[in-house]
Amino acid sequence: MIAEELAKKQREISIAEFFEKNKHVLGYSNPSKSLITCVKEAVENSIDACEDANILPDIFLKIDRNDNLKVTVEDNGPGIVKEQISRIFGKLLYGSRFHAIRQSRGQQGIGISGAVLYAQLTTGKPAVIISKTSPDKKAQRIELYINTRKNEPEIVKEEFVDWHRARGTRVELEVSGIYVKERKQSVLEYLKETSVVNPHTKITFIDTEGDIFEFKRVSEELPQATREIKPHPHGIELGTLMAMLRQTDSKDLKSFLKDEFVRVGDKIAQDVIERAGLDRKQNPGKLSREEVIGLLKAFKNTDFLPPPTDCLSPIGESLIMKSLMAEYRGEWVYAVTRKPKVYSGHPFLVEAGIVYGGEIASEKMTLLRYANKIPLLYQQGGCAITRAVESVNWRNYGMQQSKGELPVCPAVLMVHIASTNVPYTSESKEAVSYIPEIADEIRLALQELGRKLKEYVERKERLKKKRKKEDVLSAVLPLLARKVCQILEKDEIDVDRIVAKIIGKVHIERLVSENDEYREVNLKISNFTNSRKELKIYEICSGEVEASDAKIIQSSYSTLKWNVTINPEDTATLLYRIKGKIINKKPMIEGVEEFELAGGEVTEMNS
Amino acid sequence: MIAEELAKKQREISIAEFFEKNKHVLGYSNPSKSLITCVKEAVENSIDACEDANILPDIFLKIDRNDNLKVTVEDNGPGIVKEQISRIFGKLLYGSRFHAIRQSRGQQGIGISGAVLYAQLTTGKPAVIISKTSPDKKAQRIELYINTRKNEPEIVKEEFVDWHRARGTRVELEVSGIYVKERKQSVLEYLKETSVVNPHTKITFIDTEGDIFEFKRVSEELPQATREIKPHPHGIELGTLMAMLRQTDSKDLKSFLKDEFVRVGDKIAQDVIERAGLDRKQNPGKLSREEVIGLLKAFKNTDFLPPPTDCLSPIGESLIMKSLMAEYRGEWVYAVTRKPKVYSGHPFLVEAGIVYGGEIASEKMTLLRYANKIPLLYQQGGCAITRAVESVNWRNYGMQQSKGELPVCPAVLMVHIASTNVPYTSESKEAVSYIPEIADEIRLALQELGRKLKEYVERKERLKKKRKKEDVLSAVLPLLARKVCQILEKDEIDVDRIVAKIIGKVHIERLVSENDEYREVNLKISNFTNSRKELKIYEICSGEVEASDAKIIQSSYSTLKWNVTINPEDTATLLYRIKGKIINKKPMIEGVEEFELAGGEVTEMNS
Repeated sequence: MIAEELAKKQREISIAEFFEKNKHVLGYSNPSKSLITCVKEAVENSIDACEDANILPDIFLKIDRNDNLKVTVEDNGPGIVKEQISRIFGKLLYGSRFHAIRQSRGQQGIGISGAVLYAQLTTGKPAVIISKTSPDKKAQRIELYINTRKNEPEIVKEEFVDWHRARGTRVELEVSGIYVKERKQSVLEYLKETSVVNPHTKITFIDTEGDIFEFKRVSEELPQATREIKPHPHGIELGTLMAMLRQTDSKDLKSFLKDEFVRVGDKIAQDVIERAGLDRKQNPGKLSREEVIGLLKAFKNTDFLPPPTDCLSPIGESLIMKSLMAEYRGEWVYAVTRKPKVYSGHPFLVEAGIVYGGEIASEKMTLLRYANKIPLLYQQGGCAITRAVESVNWRNYGMQQSKGELPVCPAVLMVHIASTNVPYTSESKEAVSYIPEIADEIRLALQELGRKLKEYVERKERLKKKRKKEDVLSAVLPLLARKVCQILEKDEIDVDRIVAKIIGKVHIERLVSENDEYREVNLKISNFTNSRKELKIYEICSGEVEASDAKIIQSSYSTLKWNVTINPEDTATLLYRIKGKIINKKPMIEGVEEFELAGGEVTEMNS
Repeated sequence: MIAEELAKKQREISIAEFFEKNKHVLGYSNPSKSLITCVKEAVENSIDACEDANILPDIFLKIDRNDNLKVTVEDNGPGIVKEQISRIFGKLLYGSRFHAIRQSRGQQGIGISGAVLYAQLTTGKPAVIISKTSPDKKAQRIELYINTRKNEPEIVKEEFVDWHRARGTRVELEVSGIYVKERKQSVLEYLKETSVVNPHTKITFIDTEGDIFEFKRVSEELPQATREIKPHPHGIELGTLMAMLRQTDSKDLKSFLKDEFVRVGDKIAQDVIERAGLDRKQNPGKLSREEVIGLLKAFKNTDFLPPPTDCLSPIGESLIMKSLMAEYRGEWVYAVTRKPKVYSGHPFLVEAGIVYGGEIASEKMTLLRYANKIPLLYQQGGCAITRAVESVNWRNYGMQQSKGELPVCPAVLMVHIASTNVPYTSESKEAVSYIPEIADEIRLALQELGRKLKEYVERKERLKKKRKKEDVLSAVLPLLARKVCQILEKDEIDVDRIVAKIIGKVHIERLVSENDEYREVNLKISNFTNSRKELKIYEICSGEVEASDAKIIQSSYSTLKWNVTINPEDTATLLYRIKGKIINKKPMIEGVEEFELAGGEVTEMNS
């Protein structure tokens, strides 16, 4: 019997065996990448632990070269109690963040134990963990392997040791790997990109040659702690809902809805139950499959508030702009943080920023991808973020773009997805899966960036053209005027106002007439632009001044201030008398831009 | 104590829970892709089962639309014994192929149980499995769910039923999904591409509208069955070696090496042991870490035969060429199957084929990716195959290519990786990880294709140019000759030979003079090319012939055959006498190509 023969070969596979054989899925596919993955897993674990305990992270990383590479990562986090150390480091699919609905770097319970697995697989050395949970206690030191057949920790040695830190955790892994320095995909680049979006984190790194790199703490403020929430009714799957109904402690349907979901209050719960044609007193565990399907339909047809945002921790528009500008020295920057949305019951939000021009080369746009504040260095081609960026028609925003590729433009684009469950394409967290809801949000964010960039570039172009025209006119017209005056044998005239009229500017002129007692000053303001202008005019004077229609602000000087609105083609005249001096060389104006003013000086008094 | 608080949240995660939350990792990220993934998993399981049992696969697929989509897949395989059905379909990480070193479609023990998980998650419906292992028995019918908390099957119903097949398995899954017809990524496309590389498989598909698609069996031969092998010493990891040493039944080191590895015989085992400075009698389980490292180094410094190829099942050059030509109707095709290599102890081989011109549009080259005879439809951007193709400098082979992109060329390129362990980037088997050894092999295969294609295209170009020149000369020269003759008042002359001389061809002329008894035939062959020609000349005659220097082959006709070698600029003359007729209109020549011959006819007599 063939079937019986074949049956004999069937066996259970332990998850540790699975990842031992498929270690590339965890990011261990070549020596340099494997090293980065080890560093990533340990560093992200450390930052998460600190943030969980409301501690400003202070991370120490060292890579030593012996026969292999030894990676040491130390943090000032809360430490780990002894019973948990072996499981957290020595068992795959074990952790605190998988079942919690809130944004965190770790979410799978595979990361650091995967690194331990890689270490023992490639060098046969156990992981060494030191952890201390209180300044009064000694530190626990544990050496362990993972028993891959059972997916259980195997402790080689355990002891108490003295350790200089008050609290914290240290992990040492000896791994096969290659340390590269100068490359887009490197430990240094990973640390740099991590530091950019985690300004509250200090990272000290000593490389294989003993060189020290410090990524300083720029902000003393922890990002607001994320709060764990319950599932949101939108996007929940039937199977998940059925499981929740079976496992709830709630006695009736109404309290089940109120207790187990976020954004479901008394009234909404009643609405949903009525819409589903059910009874509020029904036992949740006893609903038939058809009734559950009805409940799910009622969810879909009900408007709930979007999920609370405090389960998510965005980077924020201003920080994105600051980081991009500082790092890439462009001439213009913009960022947008979109409102949270839901996919399959998981809240998420998209942020994007773009920095343009300046020192950035005009080639294919550089794309920086982040998920839950983790930089994604690999798999750019296989990432839904890339696909979304490429699917935008950037030609609409004035850029060159081959269909389905990144546009050519002197810009760096940054996209961040924050979610309670980032849909990574694999356990290695290198790329994000294509989820329609997320892709839509990315596209909307990018379109906003695109529009703003286009506005900026077009304005810049317009200004450039206009200035060119003005430069020519400003050079030619006075010459022309002089020539005409010579021919007509008249005195030369001041052509400033005429040039302003031709070019279309606001022109201001200060005419002073003097008598024995005072000087009478006449400000003549003409609006030659084609838009109505609301202007503030200032004159700063010493000595006595008199002006019937101006507000006078006294300090060591008297500042005169007028508010005037002038329609296109109109002219306004302001008058004052002065016994003393006018301090400002030209009249000062607020409400126009430099390029559209002649005869005065643009100011931002904010008074 | 923060650490104690945090410890309370630590929990074990079941692999089924893990994939329920991360179902996109298994390929369930959007409705149309999810449907394809369900179909893929079931169909590949079926083909694997048939091949394991040496049965020509006959697969039946039906997709019905009710509230959801119902996917039914049936095969004529060996069937599954009752005790295994629930585990194979109702438990993740369970299967027969994970621990076996040989090429198969399934390798993870996740595929079909993942589809069951997706079905229950989205529609709440159990999977229905019918299986029959012998014509004499009734079929077993089982309805089951997966208990995700425990990752164990939960049988809802089991019974014996009558079923029309002698043997086989049928699975029914009701899933959320979208069925699309006309798209590159569709069920139909998947079946088409599967059928192309599995000519021994018959697939019948009935779609949601009742339309029937048949993918016929083109070959009655099963591909040679793959044989399970032991690990190869090259590329094995330290950790794996240590685990093997601990777990072996062998009593001493030498027999361990001979028993547990492929390509290690008596002499080689002794060599390795000596090189490692160890003793053949040592107990494998008692080796120290340092001794194991020494053993591994000895492996690396020893030449072993490459792994046997019968654990792999390539498609083969001729089948690749046939399929590509049939499917894409090009004008030229080439394929290469490279020798097996090893990465991390896993044997693999790379095959590649290219079809060019003809009906193929000249745009970006189309790339078809296969792994273990499975078409890869998604994640092209994130696949090492794509990266390898893009990293080749196709401009060397005369194509247009933007740096790091697919070349522009009217061609379809196909790459197949066959391995005992394909390094997929994730459990969804959509893309292959970047493994340097594999990338190198792909590049070597592509370079061969590139060279061959370049040769073809250049020859085509040369011919085109030459023909153009010839066409002009052949048209002008006779006119010129006639005109000259008219002017000189001479008779018109035959210019064939002169044209051949100018163009640089081989020219052959048959001059016949007659008397009462026989005809004397004079073949005058001039080599106006610039290379030495080894020619075979044939004349086919009826009646009596006489030729002193020709071989005469008698059948119903007499075929005269001469071998002549003519240097450039030389002329040879062949003579024969005949009483009868010459059958062939012009003299026939082997050893030149059409375009370089005038006055004769190119032949391939192979005599």
